Amino acid sequence: MTDVAKAVFHRFGIEPIDTPALEYAEILLGKGGDETDKQTFRFTDQGGRDVAMRFDLTVPFARFAAQHVGTLGTPFRRYHIAPVWRGERPQKGRYREFVQCDFDTIGTTGVAADAETVCVIHELLSTISSQVQPSCGEFTIRLNHRGVLNGLLDTLGLRERATDVLRALDKLPKVGADAVRTELVALPDASEAAADRLLEFAGLSGDAAETFAAARPLLDGSETGLAALDRLATVVRLAIAGGCEPTRLVADLSIARGLDYYTGVIFETFLTADPKLGSVCSGGRYDDLAGLYTKQSLPGVGASLGVDRLLAHLEEQAETGARPNDPSAVFIPLLSEDRLPDVFALAKDLRASGFRVTVAPEPRGLGKHLKWVTGRGFGTAAIVGDEEAAAGTVAFKDLAGREQWTVTRAEAVDRLVEWRKTRT
Amino acid sequence: MTDVAKAVFHRFGIEPIDTPALEYAEILLGKGGDETDKQTFRFTDQGGRDVAMRFDLTVPFARFAAQHVGTLGTPFRRYHIAPVWRGERPQKGRYREFVQCDFDTIGTTGVAADAETVCVIHELLSTISSQVQPSCGEFTIRLNHRGVLNGLLDTLGLRERATDVLRALDKLPKVGADAVRTELVALPDASEAAADRLLEFAGLSGDAAETFAAARPLLDGSETGLAALDRLATVVRLAIAGGCEPTRLVADLSIARGLDYYTGVIFETFLTADPKLGSVCSGGRYDDLAGLYTKQSLPGVGASLGVDRLLAHLEEQAETGARPNDPSAVFIPLLSEDRLPDVFALAKDLRASGFRVTVAPEPRGLGKHLKWVTGRGFGTAAIVGDEEAAAGTVAFKDLAGREQWTVTRAEAVDRLVEWRKTRT
Repeated sequence: MTDVAKAVFHRFGIEPIDTPALEYAEILLGKGGDETDKQTFRFTDQGGRDVAMRFDLTVPFARFAAQHVGTLGTPFRRYHIAPVWRGERPQKGRYREFVQCDFDTIGTTGVAADAETVCVIHELLSTISSQVQPSCGEFTIRLNHRGVLNGLLDTLGLRERATDVLRALDKLPKVGADAVRTELVALPDASEAAADRLLEFAGLSGDAAETFAAARPLLDGSETGLAALDRLATVVRLAIAGGCEPTRLVADLSIARGLDYYTGVIFETFLTADPKLGSVCSGGRYDDLAGLYTKQSLPGVGASLGVDRLLAHLEEQAETGARPNDPSAVFIPLLSEDRLPDVFALAKDLRASGFRVTVAPEPRGLGKHLKWVTGRGFGTAAIVGDEEAAAGTVAFKDLAGREQWTVTRAEAVDRLVEWRKTRT
Repeated sequence: MTDVAKAVFHRFGIEPIDTPALEYAEILLGKGGDETDKQTFRFTDQGGRDVAMRFDLTVPFARFAAQHVGTLGTPFRRYHIAPVWRGERPQKGRYREFVQCDFDTIGTTGVAADAETVCVIHELLSTISSQVQPSCGEFTIRLNHRGVLNGLLDTLGLRERATDVLRALDKLPKVGADAVRTELVALPDASEAAADRLLEFAGLSGDAAETFAAARPLLDGSETGLAALDRLATVVRLAIAGGCEPTRLVADLSIARGLDYYTGVIFETFLTADPKLGSVCSGGRYDDLAGLYTKQSLPGVGASLGVDRLLAHLEEQAETGARPNDPSAVFIPLLSEDRLPDVFALAKDLRASGFRVTVAPEPRGLGKHLKWVTGRGFGTAAIVGDEEAAAGTVAFKDLAGREQWTVTRAEAVDRLVEWRKTRT
């Protein structure tokens, strides 16, 4: 999966970076909240330095960007796929060590970067679905803009209550509209009309053009809100120009992630077949990445692919341990030590034609070899026993279909290339 | 570089594994010697567990193999590319965190696995040289077998002094033959004749067949030594059958790495242009990987690619920060916000034809865009300004050759594909 992601990032001109797993504790701590501080692995190293293991990739990227942005120039696009560590109790889909996969474009406020981020998310999910695991299947990218929410809160005189309102709306899927309405009405400054309007607004979700049209009258009078709505519409229009399937882009004015961090467009991505998995790719636009480390303002936009969450999904889908037979994978059984030079030469020629070749290192009977090979994903066995060597031939055995054929050594590789074409 | 290595491992049917960076301290400590124990990062986690960060990939692999070999079956081929940590003073080419790249075949004593390891080393170095950095250029894989040395020591009655003898011989390149001779003669049980014989033996290096022929009389009377010599000859013969360039395989009866660990064939690999870099890929055969963790004997053979060492070499070779122009990398300058949908659609079509496309996120003048793009490795700029959009064309600019051409939008991608063919 990370190989697929890397290929997508490459096509979009996003560069890989890496940072050390250990940073000085003062760099990491106090940046991710109390809960994160408590979970961070921290110790004193042999040189008496107070160090800690990174708990996410955002803080190290902020440190990296502040340090190197002068040399790298902006806009700077990077991705970072690496493990992070948290000392929390392990549970399903939560590990002490897990892989994060973040990508960001910093140093620009351009709407193009917002839209391109949506295109990258779309390309990541559609490529994973087509190349890694068809069970990922369909997905939707849900989009919102913090300014739309803020604009609505302005019109209702509730901007100061943003945190409480968002916390209440966040519970919608769990507790339902009535309970959320009660909670909203109980807030200071909130009227019943305001609560109804908030709920109406949070219910706006679906086709982007329709959602934007429905939201517009609710934002009447808020310049912030209307400007944000226009920007969101541009993001959707450009993302579609850039190849996103329109049906996969859903405006959802209820999503509000990263309360303090994100300031512009925000995204979440859900698998249609498994929405309970939660968002598998989330992110948004922020005003300043590295304010704690540099005076240069670094606005940016990015997202994080939930690699472990997707893998957890794939593992649940995997029905058996047996691998599907790969027509490009060849097993060469060794029937006697004397045949080793023939076997090695055949392996070399097959590899040069793009086959994955596994040579059995010890001589055994063919039956034992074929028993070992079961369920290990090979497409064929290529047999060069004493008989074949004397006749100058190779015997092939289709390990899925039970077909067998014997050809001359000279034709062996070309014939297997032909056979592979019929299987892929 | 690691991508190239992964592709090579794949062709040889070697599987990736990963293990956690943190293990229980009792698993890691006491396995790598006192010096390693001192350098290991160790701390108590939030759950009161005594944990440590891995200092190599061998000990975690031994733990992993002991735990999973029952399910995985043998022979089992794995590679592992991952960071390791050591609290030593950082210096050139030595970091507190560095990447190791190990591959091994365990559960077999077959000579085929020895020879295949040589083939993998050969393929790794020739692929890195052709695909990553031609300055790696030529290389030699130097081969020896611990049994050859042991056999000679037997005939000289010095087997008990193996460590001292090898330590003395190890200094040959640094202090010269006379000093080593003095040290050898001073050893208990060592005669002047024995010292001469050891030096003659350590000097045997070069063409494999000639070296083996010259070594044979010196090993007269030692069954161990002669058997080891035969095995080494078989390894060389099979490696050549498997595609290794004969001139790159050098027998060197002086190499003696991994005194206590390796028991059979041993290898070191040197870049012809930079032998002082030291071995860039080393390894050998061992009797038992995981004796500390399981009663099942797991003999194996493997090697470690010196990724950081090779990268240090590459960095020294890199003359300027400017990247070579890649004909597959396209930069699309943005000249006005209005052109964003055209630019996004063009980027999509170019990516679908395998181009790496970077879209400028903010509108600027063409001159400013072309200034930014200098030295960033792009092959062409694809320009869709207002004029081009009105005419339904795209203007291309070759960023290395100064060539320019304007084509219709419909032909743009195909023409760039054609142009790329002339550049690669």
